[in-house]
Amino acid sequence: MAEIAQERAAKQLRLLEQAIDSGRLGPVKRLVNTLSPAEIGNLLESLPPAKRQVVWGVVDPEDDGEVLVHVGDEVREDLLRAMDPDEIVAAAESLDIDDLADLLDDLPDTVIDELLRSMDRVDRERLEQMLTYDEDTAGRLMNPDVVTVRADVTVDVVLRYLRLRGELPEATDHLYVLSRRRQYQGRISLAQLLTADPAVAVNRLIDDEQPGIPADMPAPEVAERFANHDWVSAPVVDENNVLLGRITIDDVVDIIREQAEHQAMGAAGLDEDADLFAPVPRTTRRRAVWLGINLLTAFLASWVIGNFEGVLKQVVACAVLMPIVASMGGVAGTQVLTLMVRAMALGQVSASNAVLLLKREVLVALANGVLWACAVGGIALLVYRDAWLALAFGAAMVINLIAAAMSGVFLPLLLRRLGIDPALAGGVILTTVTDCCGFASFLGLSTLLLLR
Amino acid sequence: MAEIAQERAAKQLRLLEQAIDSGRLGPVKRLVNTLSPAEIGNLLESLPPAKRQVVWGVVDPEDDGEVLVHVGDEVREDLLRAMDPDEIVAAAESLDIDDLADLLDDLPDTVIDELLRSMDRVDRERLEQMLTYDEDTAGRLMNPDVVTVRADVTVDVVLRYLRLRGELPEATDHLYVLSRRRQYQGRISLAQLLTADPAVAVNRLIDDEQPGIPADMPAPEVAERFANHDWVSAPVVDENNVLLGRITIDDVVDIIREQAEHQAMGAAGLDEDADLFAPVPRTTRRRAVWLGINLLTAFLASWVIGNFEGVLKQVVACAVLMPIVASMGGVAGTQVLTLMVRAMALGQVSASNAVLLLKREVLVALANGVLWACAVGGIALLVYRDAWLALAFGAAMVINLIAAAMSGVFLPLLLRRLGIDPALAGGVILTTVTDCCGFASFLGLSTLLLLR
Repeated sequence: MAEIAQERAAKQLRLLEQAIDSGRLGPVKRLVNTLSPAEIGNLLESLPPAKRQVVWGVVDPEDDGEVLVHVGDEVREDLLRAMDPDEIVAAAESLDIDDLADLLDDLPDTVIDELLRSMDRVDRERLEQMLTYDEDTAGRLMNPDVVTVRADVTVDVVLRYLRLRGELPEATDHLYVLSRRRQYQGRISLAQLLTADPAVAVNRLIDDEQPGIPADMPAPEVAERFANHDWVSAPVVDENNVLLGRITIDDVVDIIREQAEHQAMGAAGLDEDADLFAPVPRTTRRRAVWLGINLLTAFLASWVIGNFEGVLKQVVACAVLMPIVASMGGVAGTQVLTLMVRAMALGQVSASNAVLLLKREVLVALANGVLWACAVGGIALLVYRDAWLALAFGAAMVINLIAAAMSGVFLPLLLRRLGIDPALAGGVILTTVTDCCGFASFLGLSTLLLLR
Repeated sequence: MAEIAQERAAKQLRLLEQAIDSGRLGPVKRLVNTLSPAEIGNLLESLPPAKRQVVWGVVDPEDDGEVLVHVGDEVREDLLRAMDPDEIVAAAESLDIDDLADLLDDLPDTVIDELLRSMDRVDRERLEQMLTYDEDTAGRLMNPDVVTVRADVTVDVVLRYLRLRGELPEATDHLYVLSRRRQYQGRISLAQLLTADPAVAVNRLIDDEQPGIPADMPAPEVAERFANHDWVSAPVVDENNVLLGRITIDDVVDIIREQAEHQAMGAAGLDEDADLFAPVPRTTRRRAVWLGINLLTAFLASWVIGNFEGVLKQVVACAVLMPIVASMGGVAGTQVLTLMVRAMALGQVSASNAVLLLKREVLVALANGVLWACAVGGIALLVYRDAWLALAFGAAMVINLIAAAMSGVFLPLLLRRLGIDPALAGGVILTTVTDCCGFASFLGLSTLLLLR
């Protein structure tokens, strides 16, 4: 993100902290209520629990629901804990149905019951229908509030209908044209309605190029379609092509941002929904899991080294140089892995492609291996004046870079076949491979060449 | 990205490769021309150069311009090289001005001259004005094609004007209300025009809550505003609040995706605009730079080890165990760094916050350090039956995890102050610190405790 966007949010945070520290609620309140719910959510996530509750107390109750939608799961639980059931019901009632469906899992059962009772029948049925779809599918992202028209009327009729109807749902850019059985037939843009001859029939203007999105389509696939076709909104349909609702681009923007965060955080074994200020014992437990996994892989590499105690005892230079071989392999492999993960995410990898990429990467690794083998071999020769050691060092470098390239290509393909996200698990496994291979090749060659 | 989105693109790629291999252009052409320009761009990026040229040859000339906008810089150069100047001019002429401004830097000078000559005066002046703004600012993202109205007319007048005007620019959701001096005063949505009483004056409906975006605002900041306020489009103004153009959400979606890619690729020292199938020598040179940087840091860690040859000669177990200490520090530090980089990108870090986070992270590191120190110390005791070695191993683990937590918090703050993006450079520096600290603390303590 840009320097300036950071600075702006950081400045809001600084001003807010000063206002809280001054002990007067008036300035805090004034500051908070100039911000959008997304910005307030971001600020709440930045504050330690005590200050967070102070700020949460002054947020305009009308914004409460929207703010809850915009914070991570853990901070949300923290905020909900401070509200009494009536407040939660009031906050939830102010939300659009798609946002409400998003929030519902985190609400206490008693609140959910009361909320359902307070809704009118149509909204309740719509909500219940949305909840039949899995989280992170089109059916849960959609908003059932849609304006529809019939194909056999004229533009003039539509214009009069809209004027009678009044306000349109937010981000409405198209009306959807339905058959008598509520099946989706196409769309007509507001811009067309404004510029067309009022006497023209709707079916002359209908755009049937945008297909309906099946309600069970996964959210990332929905995002991909929006991005590829520059859509602002898209209709959601059931298996019989009956219109269920509409997904708007603002939800898609949120998906894309969350995906990017999930990958960046997940690659380091972190949960993007965790509270920055979660209690220390909880954070310790969470981090311990990842450290434990890594410890196992580190012991594996260590066991490899342990098999070469002979050469390590006699040639101390081996212990000094071996981390260099392992580390260069890790870096080279991570580059190939990153490239592959991205290409796979974009669907740019096919069987014939993978073979080509493997060939290219092995060639690149060979070229770089020889280059850096000469460099590090030369340095080792200068420092230790031992040609056999320099040779073992250089040769191990070439071997490990090639092994790194091969694992960088194969590992993500293998992980995907096993149903594991290579973006999350690939790094740990790859460095285990390059560590073990680096230690084994260098210490093995050293044993052969130096202990003759 | 979702399994399914990948599979869909990968399936298109497979079908396309089969069609190319069959040697008949008909099926290739039919397949390609069912796809959107973004999808075609993605496919072209997935193909090795020879096949890429075959597919590029059958793309509908009408789509050429849009496809060129959707591929990375290096593939774009490759595609442009295969076109003659007339084709390039024709492709460029089909583009909106904002896309054309994006493409212009990559075109040969002779083509640019011809292109400017072929444009009408208004468009040429608009393009020249856009080019006065830096790349990746609002002024380069905007499209000058905007529908404006005056505040003192009635809705009915606007409706008649729109009907006379005909088609509106793509993704038009609001008309902008200007003063006599073309200063931006507010906006009015198409939905309002459709639902309002035609006799009402525009100034009664005007929404002045969305401020104009200054033309020099950096692109990531623009994206942040769109995401925080759920905008579909936003007006761009100069320093005198005169309306220059309009940014639409589809460009913002591209920015957000590019940012995420830039961070993921940049952290591994890769350029997201590089061609997957660039010639091997070029790729080798590029990768060599990153490996060279890493080699320097690896030699630094190696030099640290070299200072403890005494203990390594006498206690071979030290060589076996030392990578474990270094690696655990690297993992723990990367977790803290990732967390900090994300919090900083969201503007969630202030001075008082950073102190709190440091305290928390050091406490978490201490708790995890003691936990894993007992575990690894116990294992070392079992394997080597040497209490002093186990003590040195455990203590070094605690020290290195605490050092990792402190560098994880301080390093990104320091890098940002130096104007370096911590997301790109942080990882290399952090692991250098944890490697050196891990080796020094373990080998140092071992020297003290074991060589008495």
